[in-house]
Amino acid sequence: MKLLEDRIRKDGNIKAGNVLKVDSFLNHQIDIKLLNEMGKELKRVFSDVEVTKILTIEASGIAIAAIAAQYFEVPVVFAKKSVSINIDGSVYSTKIESFTHKRIYDVIVSKKYLSAEDKILVVDDFLANGCAVDGLIDLIEESGAQLQGVGIAIEKGFQEGGKRLRGRGVRVESLAIIDAMNDETGEIVFRQ
Amino acid sequence: MKLLEDRIRKDGNIKAGNVLKVDSFLNHQIDIKLLNEMGKELKRVFSDVEVTKILTIEASGIAIAAIAAQYFEVPVVFAKKSVSINIDGSVYSTKIESFTHKRIYDVIVSKKYLSAEDKILVVDDFLANGCAVDGLIDLIEESGAQLQGVGIAIEKGFQEGGKRLRGRGVRVESLAIIDAMNDETGEIVFRQ
Repeated sequence: MKLLEDRIRKDGNIKAGNVLKVDSFLNHQIDIKLLNEMGKELKRVFSDVEVTKILTIEASGIAIAAIAAQYFEVPVVFAKKSVSINIDGSVYSTKIESFTHKRIYDVIVSKKYLSAEDKILVVDDFLANGCAVDGLIDLIEESGAQLQGVGIAIEKGFQEGGKRLRGRGVRVESLAIIDAMNDETGEIVFRQ
Repeated sequence: MKLLEDRIRKDGNIKAGNVLKVDSFLNHQIDIKLLNEMGKELKRVFSDVEVTKILTIEASGIAIAAIAAQYFEVPVVFAKKSVSINIDGSVYSTKIESFTHKRIYDVIVSKKYLSAEDKILVVDDFLANGCAVDGLIDLIEESGAQLQGVGIAIEKGFQEGGKRLRGRGVRVESLAIIDAMNDETGEIVFRQ
């Protein structure tokens, strides 16, 4: 999606260690007009599949999921994470390792909001190693719901998440895929 | 706002200890159509003030803030919370006590995204004791930005937050104010 690629080139900030900071428009300050265009594009890309709910994970997935949900006309469910949740029989739960925060989170969704009748589109802001999406897919499988696809704003194509998910047959559509970036030159190569 | 009051009566779940669960439509599963109507109403209520940014706090404030921002045509900034953030000179920071989680969080906003030129509308899903809003106002004051008002989805009018904020001259507009609720009878009294 050219609009997003242009914005990443303009306002993205590449740091050492393959870190891309997009907190001026995506995950701290949020450009809502840009998110609207991204939401429309996700709907266009997934127009061929039935979706009954969008599933995301707190916190930075919520804005893009909520804006996109307007075009799918479905509710959003966001998985909650905590270092110490009392897991009981009322929730689906899994564990997700965060490399950013060097910590393992319990992640839960209430059983009331995912069921075997649901057709789920997973939406998140970033896909890198894919741990968050793996965890959301665990929750979907536990519920018996059907995974229709994964819609991502920015995929780091040089990390293994996207490749691994596609390899196991998951439909992953990313609005921008970065194949290489250089924190010294600032150069970013997007996948065509 | 009658639409929200009706929804709270229909799907809200009153628990002992003055707990109101609205996680079927507001803060776990999110009814985006309802949020759209709430966003429009916040714009109508605050149509007389200039707003350059909406400020909220992760996680459950993000969806209502993002949807409302479409009607104000401004970006959203969400404050980040953590039990252990490295506070450095690049952020405004404060501490917020969470009664729900019985924990004190460091809450930060990057100095890049709040400035003395900004006119801020604070948006959040709930107002009870007001600690989260107090913390956001601390960050706004630290930045020199102007607080234009606080827009809340559901205010627990029987807790002190709304009264205290209004008492110090803050304009607080809540789409639904609960003056009393009874977990045995299920009765809810809304402020007129």
